[in-house]
Amino acid sequence: MNSQTRVSRRGRLISGVAMMSISIAALAATPVSPPRAWTLQDIAAAPEVVDLLISEDGKQATYIIRRGDLATNAKLSSLRRVDLATGVDRELKSSSWLSELRIIPGSTDLSVLADIGEGVQLYRIDGTGRFEAVLVNRDLDQVGSAMEGLHPFGISDYGWAPDGKSYWYAKRTSKAADARTVNPRFLPLFTAYGSSPIELHIRGADGRDVMLDRIDATAAGFYAVEWGADASSLTYWARASDHESFEHRRWSRKQSKAEVVGRESDFYAPRHDIPGPRGGSLTTTGFGNDRKLIETLRDGSVIERGRVAFRLGDPRASQNWRSPEGDVALIGIRYYENPRYGLVRVTRSGGVDEVRVEGSLTHCSVNRAFTAGVCIRESMVSPPELVRLNPRKGNVTSVVDLSPSHSAIAPLRIVPRMWTNRDGYKASGYVVYPRNHEATRKYPAILVTHGGDADQRFASVEFQWDYPVQAWAERGYIVIAMNEPAMSDSAELTAAYAQWGGSGSLPLERVQDLIWINTVRSFEAAVEDLAAQGVVDAGRVGIAGYSAGSQMVNVAMTQSKMFRVASSGDGGYLEPSGYFSNSSSYRAVYGGSPYDRAAVPRYERLSPTFRAARAAGPMLQQVAGGHSTQFELNAALRDAGVPTELVYYPDESHLFHQPRNRLTAMQENIDWFDFWLLGKEDSDPAKAEQYGRWRAMREKWSAGR
Amino acid sequence: MNSQTRVSRRGRLISGVAMMSISIAALAATPVSPPRAWTLQDIAAAPEVVDLLISEDGKQATYIIRRGDLATNAKLSSLRRVDLATGVDRELKSSSWLSELRIIPGSTDLSVLADIGEGVQLYRIDGTGRFEAVLVNRDLDQVGSAMEGLHPFGISDYGWAPDGKSYWYAKRTSKAADARTVNPRFLPLFTAYGSSPIELHIRGADGRDVMLDRIDATAAGFYAVEWGADASSLTYWARASDHESFEHRRWSRKQSKAEVVGRESDFYAPRHDIPGPRGGSLTTTGFGNDRKLIETLRDGSVIERGRVAFRLGDPRASQNWRSPEGDVALIGIRYYENPRYGLVRVTRSGGVDEVRVEGSLTHCSVNRAFTAGVCIRESMVSPPELVRLNPRKGNVTSVVDLSPSHSAIAPLRIVPRMWTNRDGYKASGYVVYPRNHEATRKYPAILVTHGGDADQRFASVEFQWDYPVQAWAERGYIVIAMNEPAMSDSAELTAAYAQWGGSGSLPLERVQDLIWINTVRSFEAAVEDLAAQGVVDAGRVGIAGYSAGSQMVNVAMTQSKMFRVASSGDGGYLEPSGYFSNSSSYRAVYGGSPYDRAAVPRYERLSPTFRAARAAGPMLQQVAGGHSTQFELNAALRDAGVPTELVYYPDESHLFHQPRNRLTAMQENIDWFDFWLLGKEDSDPAKAEQYGRWRAMREKWSAGR
Repeated sequence: MNSQTRVSRRGRLISGVAMMSISIAALAATPVSPPRAWTLQDIAAAPEVVDLLISEDGKQATYIIRRGDLATNAKLSSLRRVDLATGVDRELKSSSWLSELRIIPGSTDLSVLADIGEGVQLYRIDGTGRFEAVLVNRDLDQVGSAMEGLHPFGISDYGWAPDGKSYWYAKRTSKAADARTVNPRFLPLFTAYGSSPIELHIRGADGRDVMLDRIDATAAGFYAVEWGADASSLTYWARASDHESFEHRRWSRKQSKAEVVGRESDFYAPRHDIPGPRGGSLTTTGFGNDRKLIETLRDGSVIERGRVAFRLGDPRASQNWRSPEGDVALIGIRYYENPRYGLVRVTRSGGVDEVRVEGSLTHCSVNRAFTAGVCIRESMVSPPELVRLNPRKGNVTSVVDLSPSHSAIAPLRIVPRMWTNRDGYKASGYVVYPRNHEATRKYPAILVTHGGDADQRFASVEFQWDYPVQAWAERGYIVIAMNEPAMSDSAELTAAYAQWGGSGSLPLERVQDLIWINTVRSFEAAVEDLAAQGVVDAGRVGIAGYSAGSQMVNVAMTQSKMFRVASSGDGGYLEPSGYFSNSSSYRAVYGGSPYDRAAVPRYERLSPTFRAARAAGPMLQQVAGGHSTQFELNAALRDAGVPTELVYYPDESHLFHQPRNRLTAMQENIDWFDFWLLGKEDSDPAKAEQYGRWRAMREKWSAGR
Repeated sequence: MNSQTRVSRRGRLISGVAMMSISIAALAATPVSPPRAWTLQDIAAAPEVVDLLISEDGKQATYIIRRGDLATNAKLSSLRRVDLATGVDRELKSSSWLSELRIIPGSTDLSVLADIGEGVQLYRIDGTGRFEAVLVNRDLDQVGSAMEGLHPFGISDYGWAPDGKSYWYAKRTSKAADARTVNPRFLPLFTAYGSSPIELHIRGADGRDVMLDRIDATAAGFYAVEWGADASSLTYWARASDHESFEHRRWSRKQSKAEVVGRESDFYAPRHDIPGPRGGSLTTTGFGNDRKLIETLRDGSVIERGRVAFRLGDPRASQNWRSPEGDVALIGIRYYENPRYGLVRVTRSGGVDEVRVEGSLTHCSVNRAFTAGVCIRESMVSPPELVRLNPRKGNVTSVVDLSPSHSAIAPLRIVPRMWTNRDGYKASGYVVYPRNHEATRKYPAILVTHGGDADQRFASVEFQWDYPVQAWAERGYIVIAMNEPAMSDSAELTAAYAQWGGSGSLPLERVQDLIWINTVRSFEAAVEDLAAQGVVDAGRVGIAGYSAGSQMVNVAMTQSKMFRVASSGDGGYLEPSGYFSNSSSYRAVYGGSPYDRAAVPRYERLSPTFRAARAAGPMLQQVAGGHSTQFELNAALRDAGVPTELVYYPDESHLFHQPRNRLTAMQENIDWFDFWLLGKEDSDPAKAEQYGRWRAMREKWSAGR
């Protein structure tokens, strides 16, 4: 076994099936070190599966895994192939960029976007793992995203026609043409996303190239591109030129230009139908635990499938399939309580059978014959593992551990919870216990939040960003990994969110209360509950969140006295100057501009910048964006004498992509919470200036109260 | 004569001396095409002299000239050497970056910062023009500025000690170290300026390297670095870590760390003394035409030199020298009326003799023996020419034309003017007449402004930015190239500006009136005067300005009804959200944040965003920054139904550095003013979408009034 092959050495978490003999054998053959504790390096190097595909014969799976590489200070992607019978896992290619792994129809070959030295281009991969260029565009553009730094892109997306010969592709055009953007909508984010217009092309089986459409760079891309039954038509979504809505466009070979066939507001972004076993479309009705699964048939009639504890269509859940005979649908779901991702088999005869595992099943792939499948199994404490799935029977067997270095860490103890706030709204979350937790002690606590991302994925950067949840637990903090009350779990919240994203008739103050104040009350409910149980020391509780979480942190700190200190990551929504790049959404919250005297009282009611003088405690902002909204909150807090620090990480994306910056930001959060909650300082002499600043802030803050 | 050599073929503008025989000969030998008209390409390719040095023996001059190169869409620098006797002008090196040309003390060699393939590094240039590396730092950082795009820099500044062996230098440190910036002050500008801390080092004659100081990237650099009498001490200015002031720091070989020996507010940035012929320091007292030249001696006594029509110390004027005997000082000046740059010889015996030329003398260099000098002579309509200067006698002789392609353009007619506004304040400017101007016709007019940059420099990008002054004159517009009433010309204005930049006791409304409203009144006075004379059609006048000019344009459009249309370039100061990145300066104007109810009336009085509904006409913003201030003005104008467009140029600096973007932006300004002032449209079908937008705006605007 060389360093490029590995097999599972974990048998844990498998339910409903016998462990495979290969796993047992490997376990016996591998020297096992004693379980160890989490380090910040482990968090920065946590793996993320990008794509997973099973071969049509069900014998192999090919996947892309990406992880932070501290040596190169970048993310490294690895394309790997697993023999599902033996569990032997072989690397085909290592690269700074690999994505969009696809089966080429009518072939056993795959295709992928990869940077193998010429920017990101489109390649074919044959059965031996050999790469062959399909399309290379040498007019490269630096393109990034909220999750990734800039990469040189030649081809940015593609999709095979059913004939396996034609394909559509998207590329940036040359900057030289005309790099201006007239009336852009999202200027501050713009440079991170590439600066050239994006073109949608079709390359025919005969090699002829047709440009179908072109949109400006800020529109980011084409979505849900789908071929018609053959290669003669294509439908897709794109941002309308007014940037206020999405257009569904259709091109056919008879037309020179795509036509608009539908339009949706920003709030209702492109969606796919979920196929049911009666030829209809599956969805759920109702909210929370009252949800029912229904299938809407083509004639409009509805078949009820009974009450379910999950919902469909979550973008973090797996895709959906229907058997060739149409009698079984395999559907990706997210559970309501203990939010995890899974699969259900919905059969024509009426069955709704969950595929039972502990943790989550994500990134599943099923062959067209519906005879074989693979998934990633992971949980908040268990690193990703490749598993086989029998799509007909719904059982799962372990194949190979995808991150042995993380499997060597002793799992932390987590307990899923639901909390009900004083207004009756429920919110889910997890209590992450400190290593060697003592039931008789009260612990300091940090609540971490990011929308609904507190779930059963492993060290998910989308949830925890640069908040070192695991390292805090190792250091003796209780971490409350907490979701907001979900829109999808309440009719009233759905109405409030719909009004925020489009239209409605609630008073604006009610929208403010339902979305933001209500969430703060859920946070308070969680802390009060854990304090009442004697688990948490209510006088030493902090709060942290990025993006949507940052918004909630900023509101929590200026509405509640529950949290003594906060860390707020690359956010700014709700801060007043955001009105000017996002006015329609702000109007739904505030009714107008912050310079409009009629709207000012609503800003004073909710906007953290307007309420800075009421802040309950010190606030750290770690930012990559450098938006005016981040600045104004910082300035308002400073003006009000509240300890605050704004730390700018240059050349970063919204989710930091440089592992060393992640280490630095995580350490900064450790220092910040230790200082303000525990009065502790790191003795590293290099940090003297930091503690000098913080001590001066603390003195001024104590004197002023 | 090959393409790399050229000699003068112009004899114009030379005064006080006979034309040189070499020029005559060249003029006779060169076929002369008929004078031609300006094109946008001429403006985008206008030359800019970066550095000029005369050799100690007075026989040669070496200079760097930079110009926009449309083929590569970048600026190209050329290092050239001129034999002053023959006028033969030879290129030594062409490069994407050349700057900081210096004589190495005690040697006939020069040194320069150049990018010859390894990023910007420090080189020695011998008598034959050969380059030899002095110091190469391979840890490159991408560094830009307000005027330049990003370049890879190894060494960013340097200066030789008097021994000609030791030197100080500045470099960026590796990003890997710690790329964060804690509490940055100027975040939105930050990425353009490089993202790593800057270090100041000394390299001794023995090769030993000492790091003296380190400042964060947003502090931009070290200023006015000066060696002591020998290589054992060094003084310099740097931004203080609070970013609120500049510190004067001193390092000596005995100390390990530099000490702070002085501090100034931002407003009074680092200054140099100007040497007088009595061993004192020269300055002017009084304002406008009442200015007197004085020399303050070391004992504090003052010698009056009489009334003068100029002032000293302008950074655009030439440097200053004192003869080795100390009896003559040669001083760079700027004239009050018809603002041009020149030299005066101030002698011990009391003489104050101006070096007489038409146009300006800039970039002068004089040898240590004070026996020979060179300058650039240029004017608003005459391209730069290298001239010899006799520093003792003060006469000037032509040597070589530095831009024959621009000399081929028939000069436009300009008339310098002073206008007095209704409050009695004077402002200078130039009327640029249309080609083939007819005295009996009234012309449409465009007023272009940028602080005090309307002066006798050739097609200066610092004044005209992407406003095609010359092309507008070719198209039949009167262009009013206009300055604001200068702080340096009025005691009251000086007080108002000082209060804006630091402290004072004027009511804030008075500061607003003196600096901004007063300037708008000067613009109105100029237009009223030209309309009264029958030169300008008062119903068809527009206004354009970038940066400081953009501020004035935005105020003019929301305070006055004089201008029917505007173009506002990469500005935003005075717009409310600027408070949060520049609060101390905004407090001097508004008294507080735009969210502070007490300060709001002062924003409503001056801030264009607050006054958008009063805008007199359509406003175009062309921006490179993408600041919130630009967004909020755009949004407020749109909310108010005022025609407006925000065009974002990515990868640009405050002054656009990509020649193709300059062409596009200039053409956009031509289209914009033609459309709104003349009702004209370009028939290019590629512009159909543009005119569609503008016509829709025009209809809505007409209907709403």
